Amino acid sequence: MLDLMQITTPVLLLDETRARANLARMAARAERQGIRFRPHFKTHQSAAMGDWFRAVGVRAITVSSVRMARYFADAGWDDITIAFPVNVRELPAIAELAARVRLGLLVDSEAAVTALGMACSQPVDVWLEVDTGYQRSGLPVEHVDACVAVLRAARAQAHLRVQGLLTHTGQSYAAQGEAALTALHAHTLGALQSLRAALATAGFPGLELSIGDTPTCSVVDDLGAVDEMRPGNFVFYDWMQHTIGACSEQDIAVAVACPIVAVYPARRELILYGGAVHLSKEFIRPADGAPDYGHAAALDESGWGPAWEGVYLRALSQEHGILHAANTRSFDAHLAACNVGDLVAVLPIHSCLTADLLKTYTTLGGERIAMMETAP
Amino acid sequence: MLDLMQITTPVLLLDETRARANLARMAARAERQGIRFRPHFKTHQSAAMGDWFRAVGVRAITVSSVRMARYFADAGWDDITIAFPVNVRELPAIAELAARVRLGLLVDSEAAVTALGMACSQPVDVWLEVDTGYQRSGLPVEHVDACVAVLRAARAQAHLRVQGLLTHTGQSYAAQGEAALTALHAHTLGALQSLRAALATAGFPGLELSIGDTPTCSVVDDLGAVDEMRPGNFVFYDWMQHTIGACSEQDIAVAVACPIVAVYPARRELILYGGAVHLSKEFIRPADGAPDYGHAAALDESGWGPAWEGVYLRALSQEHGILHAANTRSFDAHLAACNVGDLVAVLPIHSCLTADLLKTYTTLGGERIAMMETAP
Repeated sequence: MLDLMQITTPVLLLDETRARANLARMAARAERQGIRFRPHFKTHQSAAMGDWFRAVGVRAITVSSVRMARYFADAGWDDITIAFPVNVRELPAIAELAARVRLGLLVDSEAAVTALGMACSQPVDVWLEVDTGYQRSGLPVEHVDACVAVLRAARAQAHLRVQGLLTHTGQSYAAQGEAALTALHAHTLGALQSLRAALATAGFPGLELSIGDTPTCSVVDDLGAVDEMRPGNFVFYDWMQHTIGACSEQDIAVAVACPIVAVYPARRELILYGGAVHLSKEFIRPADGAPDYGHAAALDESGWGPAWEGVYLRALSQEHGILHAANTRSFDAHLAACNVGDLVAVLPIHSCLTADLLKTYTTLGGERIAMMETAP
Repeated sequence: MLDLMQITTPVLLLDETRARANLARMAARAERQGIRFRPHFKTHQSAAMGDWFRAVGVRAITVSSVRMARYFADAGWDDITIAFPVNVRELPAIAELAARVRLGLLVDSEAAVTALGMACSQPVDVWLEVDTGYQRSGLPVEHVDACVAVLRAARAQAHLRVQGLLTHTGQSYAAQGEAALTALHAHTLGALQSLRAALATAGFPGLELSIGDTPTCSVVDDLGAVDEMRPGNFVFYDWMQHTIGACSEQDIAVAVACPIVAVYPARRELILYGGAVHLSKEFIRPADGAPDYGHAAALDESGWGPAWEGVYLRALSQEHGILHAANTRSFDAHLAACNVGDLVAVLPIHSCLTADLLKTYTTLGGERIAMMETAP
């Protein structure tokens, strides 16, 4: 049971049952398809929650920084991929880690490969990062010659073991529903397979394929010839994933308990203690055009209820959240009975950023779960 | 001198000379006008930086949370206004603070006033929060009767001392340039004075007026009959304030040193180690419509140079920042010579949120300055 009297400021609530169910479901999807499950731990950033993953058989993980890799290595994880372009300014720390764990790294330039190879005195797995259209990091999937050059540079380094091709199909966050995600994945996979075939011809056979994004991994039932999947957000999901169609609202496993500090019926609005420093400024912009920073629900000792229809956070400042009812009906149904001092639950737009800000989970059983701390 | 070799991950740089100049300039503006200067410390959140304010004569401060009030009370500040609606769930902590320092609080409902009055056994200053058009918190400035009701409720409580009317003209963030800000302030002040006159007639004479936003306090040369000003962001400023016209680019006193981790000339882009967990997802959207998450500049041992024209962060994910050149000329001028492993400085869109995320300052002299820590 939650002790609501103990909640005086914004508190990150975690529904452990939902999170464990999300985890079991994704692990089963991977197992059914014979795909290695290497979940991304940047979402939860918690050694204690990492144990939940071990309990369903996870042995290999993904992280987003060298510091996070060290944190989870300290917690006993020994097969860690840092899914971020090798930061050559951290090579000494990377080399140290490589001596402790099986370390995977992302490269897409000869410069990074050469610097990495020279720094390492222990074997390191390298993944060629490929851009299949998201235009963040990675070599364009159609640039076979550039890919060959990087792989040749890697092969010239004694301690680098080329594992395969890795991509993050971040475009999936702009897709909606199963058909769109399935089509997008078919495009991604086709492009990766073409590149793999060309690289095999060029002398690099047997490359594995690793994909990452939560929407695709959640929705596409047959990922085809994928060897590894690295979703992270799925353990909590959030309102954005719900909008994409990657989860149901009942799968969302985190919410922020926020005190109501002011009530303005004429504006159909409440002010919550819960702002950008708690939720992050991530938003979605639905078809009607108004930015949406989160959704609210009733909260009691057992957890939160369904999101209030027609009610959303229309703006956040540093500490304030403005909860708005789109019309009189939704105000009357959900906000009219709210008073200063009550608590509401906010389902965040992007749970990874919200967790990163709040740093401690409180389960619905009232247990506190720590996360990695902020860098000093 | 900065030791750039020590910078391996995103680091929050602080130009102490600029920050102290911003502070001295704002303190002088307040003094020249005979306005009490009660700077908002939510921007820097640092006891050590608080001493810089003491050095220019500041004795009264503003904060945005009870926890922040306690942190600065522990650092010796004894006149603190919490510029956030009273959170009745924190009344025990508020009452404790009121016994230690002169505490100012914001109220705008009879419910909050009554709960506060019943919790306090020591005197507390209360400010009636008024909404002059921003539509965040505060009673609408034209609702005289509602204001009278709250003031009556406050007068009925033995320990509440009504100080005056307080507003945050957050609309100033959507204004641009001196003329627009001057007109906006004239509107705000007129509305506050009308309300003050009406409240005097209703039996509440002598109310002070307190305003807060950095754009107005930076630009409007004569704030008129204002008794107190509470700007906070001005000590650092940022790209948003520069866009508003509240500062020059040379006044911006913080930047984030970010390693370059990938280079994509065909896209006219670099990938920085520097994402939403370092900079926040705050952005501005200039007239041409593309979101802008920050601006880049060259960095050397003495600090950062002018922002690169035509170059901006077009997107952020959790750890990645995508630095984009709008055209070939700006790419050639600024990004073409950048290599993986180099550092660039990023001028943040909203320095308050960036500082809140990074938690430690590194001055251009290489000194580290701590901030308040994240809540456990």
